[in-house]
Amino acid sequence: MILRKKTKPVFIGPVQIGGDAPVVVQSMTCTDTRNIEQTLRQIITLADAGCEIVRVAVPDREAAASFGKIRERSPVPLIADIHFDYHLAIEAIKAGADGIRINPGNIKREMMKEIAHAAGDKGIAIRIGVNAGSVEKDILASYGGPTTQALVESAMRTVRFFEDLGFTALKLSVKSSDVATMVESYRALSNATEYPLHLGVTEAGGIVASAIKSSIGIGMLLYEGIGDTIRVSITGDPVHEVAVAYGILRALHVREVGPDIISCPTCGRCEFDVAGVLDEVEKRLSGMKTYMKIAIMGCPVNGPGEAAEADIGIAGGRGTGLLFKKGKVVKRLKDKELVETLIQEIRRISGE
Amino acid sequence: MILRKKTKPVFIGPVQIGGDAPVVVQSMTCTDTRNIEQTLRQIITLADAGCEIVRVAVPDREAAASFGKIRERSPVPLIADIHFDYHLAIEAIKAGADGIRINPGNIKREMMKEIAHAAGDKGIAIRIGVNAGSVEKDILASYGGPTTQALVESAMRTVRFFEDLGFTALKLSVKSSDVATMVESYRALSNATEYPLHLGVTEAGGIVASAIKSSIGIGMLLYEGIGDTIRVSITGDPVHEVAVAYGILRALHVREVGPDIISCPTCGRCEFDVAGVLDEVEKRLSGMKTYMKIAIMGCPVNGPGEAAEADIGIAGGRGTGLLFKKGKVVKRLKDKELVETLIQEIRRISGE
Repeated sequence: MILRKKTKPVFIGPVQIGGDAPVVVQSMTCTDTRNIEQTLRQIITLADAGCEIVRVAVPDREAAASFGKIRERSPVPLIADIHFDYHLAIEAIKAGADGIRINPGNIKREMMKEIAHAAGDKGIAIRIGVNAGSVEKDILASYGGPTTQALVESAMRTVRFFEDLGFTALKLSVKSSDVATMVESYRALSNATEYPLHLGVTEAGGIVASAIKSSIGIGMLLYEGIGDTIRVSITGDPVHEVAVAYGILRALHVREVGPDIISCPTCGRCEFDVAGVLDEVEKRLSGMKTYMKIAIMGCPVNGPGEAAEADIGIAGGRGTGLLFKKGKVVKRLKDKELVETLIQEIRRISGE
Repeated sequence: MILRKKTKPVFIGPVQIGGDAPVVVQSMTCTDTRNIEQTLRQIITLADAGCEIVRVAVPDREAAASFGKIRERSPVPLIADIHFDYHLAIEAIKAGADGIRINPGNIKREMMKEIAHAAGDKGIAIRIGVNAGSVEKDILASYGGPTTQALVESAMRTVRFFEDLGFTALKLSVKSSDVATMVESYRALSNATEYPLHLGVTEAGGIVASAIKSSIGIGMLLYEGIGDTIRVSITGDPVHEVAVAYGILRALHVREVGPDIISCPTCGRCEFDVAGVLDEVEKRLSGMKTYMKIAIMGCPVNGPGEAAEADIGIAGGRGTGLLFKKGKVVKRLKDKELVETLIQEIRRISGE
C-alpha cells in the first residue's frame, strides 16, 4: 500500500487536488485556441476519455477571447496556460478560467502580483510551473544550469513571493525532460513544501517514448506517495496522454480505472493469435471505466494458472480454448467463440 | 548517478551478466521453434535491434532438435526456456544452449539435479525463473498466495538446492504481472542474495501497456541499482521489447544507446507539425546506435531555450525554423528543409 504524502488541497473548479483527493488526471489541448469548435471537440474527447482538468494555451488576446467561449461550453474545468504576458492571465481569469498556470521563468514579478490579485479576487488557484528549459537566468547562474536545486529554488522563491502577497492557492511543478532530474527535483520539492504537486516529464516525445519516461518518473514518485495530479506529455493527439496516465495509476493501484489487460508475450509453445486477440479486445473495451483484470493467454495448459490473479480471462490453443475466472475454468469453447464470449461476459459484469 | 549493486557475474556465451558488466538486454522469440528459418530470422532481427541474448522456448523434442540447428547459426547467445520436462533441458544443453531457464514451479527436484549436472559439465548458467503464476503449491499454501515473500522463498529455496549440488552459475528472476509485487519481490531478493538478477514484469500486455508497467517496475529497480539484465515482455513482435528496453536504460542513463528524441507536446501556440516531423525523424533514425539527445520543437521563440540540453534540435514555425545545438542557433532554414538538414547533421556527427 502506498502512503500518500498529505498536501494542502486546492480546487480547480469543483475538482480537488491534494489533501485526501484521488490523484487527478490532466491533459492539454494542442489545437489553435482561437479555433473554438476544434478546441472544444478536443476537450470533449479528453473528458470522455477520463481527463478531469484540461489546460489550454492562451498565447494572445484573440485566444483569450476564445478561451471564454470555450470555457462556457466545456464539460471539465479549464486552466489557462500563460507565458510572458500577464494581461493574458487577467483576460483568462475574467473569461472564467478555473486556474492559471504561469512559468516563473518568463513572467516578471510585478506581473505575477497582478495575476495573484486577479486570481485571489476570483478564488482560483495558480500553478507555479517551473520548466528546466526556462529557469530564471540568475538561478541558472547560481547553480550552473537547470539542476535539481535550481528547479526547486525557482519554485520555492516564487512560492515565497506569492505567500508574501497572501496568496496560497498554489500547486507546483518542476518538470524536466530528464527523468532523473525530474524525480530528484520533485523529491526535494515534496520535502520543502506542503503545496500539492503536479507531476510530469516534459518534452517526453511520442507515445511509446513518453510512456517509458513518464511511467518511470511519475510512477516512481507516486509509488513514494508523492504527487497530487499528473500530466503525461505526448507529442500528438492528447487523448493518448489520458490513456497512459490512467495506465500508470492503474499499474500502481493508485486509481483503479479501466481494464487492466494482461497477456502472455507468447513463445514457441503458442498456437493461438494472442497479439491479434489482444488488439481486438483492447479496441472493443476502449473507453471502459470499470476496473477489471483481464487475461489473454496463449496456452490452455498454463494460461488459467499463470493468470490466476485475473478476474476473467481466456486461454486459446489448437482450436479450443477456455474462459476462466480467478484461475478456475468456467467454460470450454471453440477458439473463434473466445473473444465474443469474453467481451459479453465483461459487459455483463461491468454493466458498461 | 546510480550506484549499482555488485553481483556475482555469470556468462551466457561471451556475454557477462552481473559484476561490473553493463545491464544486458534480452528478448524471446515468439515463433514456432520447430520452424528453424523463421525463428532464425526473428533472432537476427532482434540482434540487429541490439538484443544481446535471445531466449527460445523448447517445448518438445522436435523443438530441441531445431534449437541445435538454430544455435549453430545464431549471431547471439541463446537460452533454452524449459518447462515440465527435464529431458528437453538435457537435449538443449547437448545442442549448444548458452544458458537454461527453468521455472522451479514446474520442474521436480530430481529433474533439476540432472539439469544442474548437465549444465555444470558444459559450464553454462541457469536462470531460476520464478513466476507469480506458477509458484510451488506448498509455498503458495504457506504464504496464502503468490506474495512477495512467496516469490522470494521459491527463488531462494531453489538457490539453496543448486548450491547444495555445488552449482552456482545462477541468475534469478521473480516476475509478476503486478508491478508493486514485482518491485517488492526484487528488492527483497536483492537483499537476500548476490546472484545477478534478471528483471521483468510478466504478461505485461501490448506495446504501450507493457511500456508503462515495465518502465515503472524495471525503471524503479534500476534507479535503485538493482538489476543486471532486463527483459520487457510485450505481446506481439518481440523487436518492440528491445526498443522499450533501451528506452528504459537510456531514460535513466544506465546505458546510453540510440537517439533520445525529446519533443514538445505542442499547444495552442504551435504552428509546426511537430507530431508529423517527430514520426518521420523517429522512423529515419530507427536502428541508430549512437546516443544523442535530439529535440523537435514547435516554436522558434521558446524551442532552442527549452531544449538547451539537447545536443541538436530543430524548432519550426510560420514557414521558417531553426537548427540549434546545445541551445545555440546554428542555422535559419525554411520549414521544409528542417528535417533533411537535421538528419544529415545527425548522420555526419554519428557516422551512422
